[in-house]
Amino acid sequence: MRAGNPVGPHENALGRLWAPLVPWLAVALVVMKFGGTSVADAERMRAVADYVARTVRRGNQVVVAVSAMGKETDELLHLAGQVSDTRPGREMDMLITAGERKAMALLCMALHDMGISSDSFTGSQAGIITDTDHTKAKIVDVRADRVRGALAEGRVPVVGGAQGVSTNRDVTFLGRGGTDTTAVALAQALCADACEIYTDVSGVYTADPRVVPEARRLKRVSFEEMLELCASGCPKPAMRSVEFARNHGVRLHVRSAFTWEPGTWIEEEDPELEQAIISAVTSDTSEAKVTVTGVPDHPGIAARLFRALAERSINVDMIQQNVSLAGTTDISFTVPHEDLSTADEVSRSLQSEIGADQVLADPDVATVSIVGAGMKTHPGVSATMFETLANEGINIEMISTSSIRLTCVVRADVVDKAVVALHRAFKLEGE
Amino acid sequence: MRAGNPVGPHENALGRLWAPLVPWLAVALVVMKFGGTSVADAERMRAVADYVARTVRRGNQVVVAVSAMGKETDELLHLAGQVSDTRPGREMDMLITAGERKAMALLCMALHDMGISSDSFTGSQAGIITDTDHTKAKIVDVRADRVRGALAEGRVPVVGGAQGVSTNRDVTFLGRGGTDTTAVALAQALCADACEIYTDVSGVYTADPRVVPEARRLKRVSFEEMLELCASGCPKPAMRSVEFARNHGVRLHVRSAFTWEPGTWIEEEDPELEQAIISAVTSDTSEAKVTVTGVPDHPGIAARLFRALAERSINVDMIQQNVSLAGTTDISFTVPHEDLSTADEVSRSLQSEIGADQVLADPDVATVSIVGAGMKTHPGVSATMFETLANEGINIEMISTSSIRLTCVVRADVVDKAVVALHRAFKLEGE
Repeated sequence: MRAGNPVGPHENALGRLWAPLVPWLAVALVVMKFGGTSVADAERMRAVADYVARTVRRGNQVVVAVSAMGKETDELLHLAGQVSDTRPGREMDMLITAGERKAMALLCMALHDMGISSDSFTGSQAGIITDTDHTKAKIVDVRADRVRGALAEGRVPVVGGAQGVSTNRDVTFLGRGGTDTTAVALAQALCADACEIYTDVSGVYTADPRVVPEARRLKRVSFEEMLELCASGCPKPAMRSVEFARNHGVRLHVRSAFTWEPGTWIEEEDPELEQAIISAVTSDTSEAKVTVTGVPDHPGIAARLFRALAERSINVDMIQQNVSLAGTTDISFTVPHEDLSTADEVSRSLQSEIGADQVLADPDVATVSIVGAGMKTHPGVSATMFETLANEGINIEMISTSSIRLTCVVRADVVDKAVVALHRAFKLEGE
Repeated sequence: MRAGNPVGPHENALGRLWAPLVPWLAVALVVMKFGGTSVADAERMRAVADYVARTVRRGNQVVVAVSAMGKETDELLHLAGQVSDTRPGREMDMLITAGERKAMALLCMALHDMGISSDSFTGSQAGIITDTDHTKAKIVDVRADRVRGALAEGRVPVVGGAQGVSTNRDVTFLGRGGTDTTAVALAQALCADACEIYTDVSGVYTADPRVVPEARRLKRVSFEEMLELCASGCPKPAMRSVEFARNHGVRLHVRSAFTWEPGTWIEEEDPELEQAIISAVTSDTSEAKVTVTGVPDHPGIAARLFRALAERSINVDMIQQNVSLAGTTDISFTVPHEDLSTADEVSRSLQSEIGADQVLADPDVATVSIVGAGMKTHPGVSATMFETLANEGINIEMISTSSIRLTCVVRADVVDKAVVALHRAFKLEGE
């Protein structure tokens, strides 16, 4: 069951019946992650418990990682904002992890009601050891003895997501999307057969189905493709957890906690299989563009600008420097919308020092990307993309590429049109 | 400052100025407990932080024990009821302690805003070691090294109330009122100068001021009197914490987190001082009465009945067996209202076995009590009580006594009248 079979290991009803007789039909161990929407209220909590109970009754071992219920993390952040302007990281982490603590205890109670023995564990109790970087701590070790002990006793361990204990013995929060990371780290530490990310979408699609009604769910996608999809606007799963899963060889299965149907497997590329040229089209409206024009074209100017931006913790994504004309050049870069005013301010403060003409801040941009592992071996993909956009009358303002991704910056108001056209051009609606 | 001075040690503004010069004017260490009403919302949280900050700036060391905000514990219980019928204790404790976790983190944030360095600690981090009796765990040890460490660094430790870690490494809840116990246990472990219980009343009164407008706040009351007052209906502080404080010689100061005025000191009886004969009149409408009539008066009958009640975990308070007439007797006892139907059912199930005539369940009773350490050495107190009730036309249905308390069961609808009359009869309104 550990090979690249896209059917979930616990969907094999034979496991329980045959396991004692046929030693090679081992019981599967699966880590299930449930996000906030999946456990938003008492009814959802019971639906999740019912599903876990069914999986256990089929003879599988299950470890659960659970997020805070619904919008609770946002509510806690709001409360903190009401009480304090400074909001020290250590205390923010103590506050926010209370949400997962509630959810894990309630899920255990619901499981007990269904006759499934279960124990909740905080990140600390589950042995999730992190660095001391509060509000976005990184896992440095997993000492899952208590989780293993519970499994050995036939109990279901339910671990609070996105939390750990630091090497200073303080409670830490892994950041937004951290429950995915918790699940993957547990799957790796426990040598689980798979890590299932249950969410409010039923997998990874060739495009956002709200934009492209013909969008198709992908049966599988490689880690590298998934990372590019995450980076270019695909909302699930959290990018950090995909990186962790790739680095540790943990197979992910992104699927729905509402329909429970099989979703998308994220796993190592299978060299035996022919790669789709393009797997999906994504878009992202979360970034804005800054252009610094008329910059003298000599060494050190770009370094000065991007060092100053880094010092203000601005996360610059794409950077483009135009061909030099008459000794000056234009530098464009994208930043998250929330950083636009700071980036604009930093750039203006350097304007005279670096001898630039103007600084232009542009909030109305978006990116459209195509991602596919087959792109590496198929020339002409970029030409098709540019022609498709040109035929739609869409102007390309910036271009960025990786070996398996092509991204264009366009006007925000035409990005959906671009996605629809590219989805059709690369024939993603067909099987 | 450790003697029986009713002025709080941290109210001495000299502490900070003189401490470095005059070694005998030591800095005071005080443990402050804040209940749910005191930290019900962001505004209250900041008011409490402001008060703690002022106390610290006057040169005192402060350790805080804080309850969950407002009605949060009730809300968590309600949520558990929606999710689960079984509600295993281990998970209930994990759930409920999330409330204190939020409150302590928020209070630390508010303190940071006011320039006071502060660290939150869970019960586990604060070294509150308990037994494994979930939902009502008892403290077996306090290993407050981290709390001491924070104090030594000039920081304010804020400890989550009513929680600890069991000898099995599970999170435990100390039960309702458990934050008082946390505060007292910390005060004892840290050899604090006092333990201040901040609450929504401004101290302990000679009677409930809603019933007796002339009721007077007591400047001090002995541990023994306070225990009797708690047992007979006085709502604050939690009885268990008073017992703990008495057993470990921790002085308590019950006072208001709204007016911040000095409240009531609870401490060892001072043999030098003359005792008030009666300190206070209390009443309690939380109990109901069961009477089993016509029981054959021979050995083992009462044992059979009360063993059966104990097996159903019914907490029987007063028991009275009437004088035997013609070989049969009546047994009356009181139980909490919520246990009345079970107690009635248990008694009826034994009715034929013990040969009783009838079982009468009576929900409409109340107790009225007078409490005073001077009662021991002043005869005639009981006569005054009975005469006072008789003059008001109030019938006494049961009587119970301790060396410093006299309790009568009366009809519920006349209990306030009884309190007013007794308060006047014992001249409690005067200074």
